Amino acid sequence: MSFSSRKKSKEEVIEALHGVASEMHDKMVKGVPPTMTLPVRSKSNIGFDQRLGVYKYGKKKTVRDATSLGSARQLLRSLHVTEFVEEMIHAGKTSTLREMYYISEGWGNGKFHSQNESNNLAEDLEIVTKCLREDFRLRPEEDGARIIGNVTFEERNRRGNWMRINCRDDVGDSGYGVPYNVESEKLRLIEEDIDFVMAIETGGMFDRLIENGFDEEARCALIHLKGQPARSTRRIMRRISDEWKKPIVVFADCDPWSFRIYASIAYGAIKTAHISEYLASKGAIYLGITADDILAYDLPSDDLTKQDLGALEAELSDPRFSTGWWQQQIEMMKELGKKAEQQSLAKYGLDFVTDTYLPEKLAHPDVGLPY
Amino acid sequence: MSFSSRKKSKEEVIEALHGVASEMHDKMVKGVPPTMTLPVRSKSNIGFDQRLGVYKYGKKKTVRDATSLGSARQLLRSLHVTEFVEEMIHAGKTSTLREMYYISEGWGNGKFHSQNESNNLAEDLEIVTKCLREDFRLRPEEDGARIIGNVTFEERNRRGNWMRINCRDDVGDSGYGVPYNVESEKLRLIEEDIDFVMAIETGGMFDRLIENGFDEEARCALIHLKGQPARSTRRIMRRISDEWKKPIVVFADCDPWSFRIYASIAYGAIKTAHISEYLASKGAIYLGITADDILAYDLPSDDLTKQDLGALEAELSDPRFSTGWWQQQIEMMKELGKKAEQQSLAKYGLDFVTDTYLPEKLAHPDVGLPY
Repeated sequence: MSFSSRKKSKEEVIEALHGVASEMHDKMVKGVPPTMTLPVRSKSNIGFDQRLGVYKYGKKKTVRDATSLGSARQLLRSLHVTEFVEEMIHAGKTSTLREMYYISEGWGNGKFHSQNESNNLAEDLEIVTKCLREDFRLRPEEDGARIIGNVTFEERNRRGNWMRINCRDDVGDSGYGVPYNVESEKLRLIEEDIDFVMAIETGGMFDRLIENGFDEEARCALIHLKGQPARSTRRIMRRISDEWKKPIVVFADCDPWSFRIYASIAYGAIKTAHISEYLASKGAIYLGITADDILAYDLPSDDLTKQDLGALEAELSDPRFSTGWWQQQIEMMKELGKKAEQQSLAKYGLDFVTDTYLPEKLAHPDVGLPY
Repeated sequence: MSFSSRKKSKEEVIEALHGVASEMHDKMVKGVPPTMTLPVRSKSNIGFDQRLGVYKYGKKKTVRDATSLGSARQLLRSLHVTEFVEEMIHAGKTSTLREMYYISEGWGNGKFHSQNESNNLAEDLEIVTKCLREDFRLRPEEDGARIIGNVTFEERNRRGNWMRINCRDDVGDSGYGVPYNVESEKLRLIEEDIDFVMAIETGGMFDRLIENGFDEEARCALIHLKGQPARSTRRIMRRISDEWKKPIVVFADCDPWSFRIYASIAYGAIKTAHISEYLASKGAIYLGITADDILAYDLPSDDLTKQDLGALEAELSDPRFSTGWWQQQIEMMKELGKKAEQQSLAKYGLDFVTDTYLPEKLAHPDVGLPY
């Protein structure tokens, strides 16, 4: 399965969806129950591809056929979704996943009973058709990231015009808001004058670096991840990494959940394993806060909770944290029994992070970026 | 107490903070323990001002003096905060409330023990000095709203230059991001060609109205509230209401918590009772979703939970919902036992909200806006 031959035209998307209907149709013509074939979507069928350095689905397939009521409903829904997506493509519309859930009210036996069902079916169809949710014109509810720095994009606005936006000069303090679709038909990477990208977990730290002029000082673009980054956020970092050959540096809390944010950027996440190759920025660097920072900078910290310890334990056997460096950091954190926030650097004043911490960390051999 | 004579100069802010120190100093010179006088910040001292139509603090005062360890710490903290704010004013810096919490690590006995303590002290100082948190250059973590529509602002960027932004033509799909400070030293309202403002609870519905071109069709500016609206979101609506004389129409879920979002926009909220006069858009109109919409449009709905019912019960005796119309809607909702989301309108397709629902509601005598 490969999403590498992006991007798909409207016709290709419709054709791929019709393929799903064809499989069903062909079976029915032969007088057997219609089917839909897709990979097993459980953890047991997700492996870490060492060569590509990302999570991927394995070869196990499952066949849904219309001999049980549940599966028959899923097949019916797939056909309704196909029809709905085709309508949106023709009308130039998009829809939130929540709207699709409500629209299914009119689908009789194909009606979704929970948002979870409709979200999962959208992912199933991505896998079967090798298209993306964005190709289906389905949107999540969450907002995308914000970007500030000397990079220039062109975004196609709703009137169909390409609008040129420099993320340093043409935006207010809140920066450029990344749209849900960052494919080339919607967003173009035009010009840059940066050395790297810094992805930042919290809004407070993002605003701090902007106020302190760190983007200009360090010649970087700053991206506010807003917690676990949306697909569009991960995809735009991947495009910057591919098209502009810029390193992605992740600056997050020292916290097991923040480590997972990093891992989803660098290697992909289980939920989006079918499109890791397309979302993951292989080679993304974890800058901090690290467990040894808590000691080295004597940072204010909080005790690890039971949940935190459980998450750290799981990370020790997660292939994304299999390097010696990560194993050491996680063990050290368990030993300390502490976690710390990015903003705890404010203990030493508002400028400490940009005057001292970031320059020291960027120049450190573990990171090794010129500063 | 009045915040109406906005805006305060840097010198006035410093002078107001010095007033707090003076009260303490004067007492000490007289040989008595230093004090700080402020209104009682409990629900019993918050009343609904019928004339102004907003929540306000009453006349009950409390005196904090340094005869107990807790109060002495609060006085010490006030002095540290005063010093910190003065430093920021001189350096042209701002700080998140979280950063101030960490900065207090260096304040010895004045150190905050929780973020809650530092947030509350910031509010206390607002009340005592009649300044705003924004005057103190303290920022929240949350993001502000997004705006799309034919309105033009000027925002002063971090280089000190005024940047002109039209919220229809100069922004991407995610719209104009409202900065945390929307006072006249940071943001100017320049030009508009709209008839009203529509404030929208969910991102999905905001994006729907944009995609359907509702802002142009109905000649309005659309604001995405992002749940309970941030101060800056409420303040910018108030400014648009005052300076441009535009009605504010609120479009939210039919849900007791969404009714509170409306009430905080129209009348203020308990937490910010000391600045209601400055944040509330008196005359803001609740458009829907209403309980009778659930019936009239046969909308997909969910059962009210026990918490929902408790919230509705509390609203029946809340002065902000004392009108006959609200009492009727809340009683009807209790009887139905149902709530409904904005996006449930998608039951009738993606265009129903803009082709049918909103035009009907805007023209309804309860709302009475031309469409």
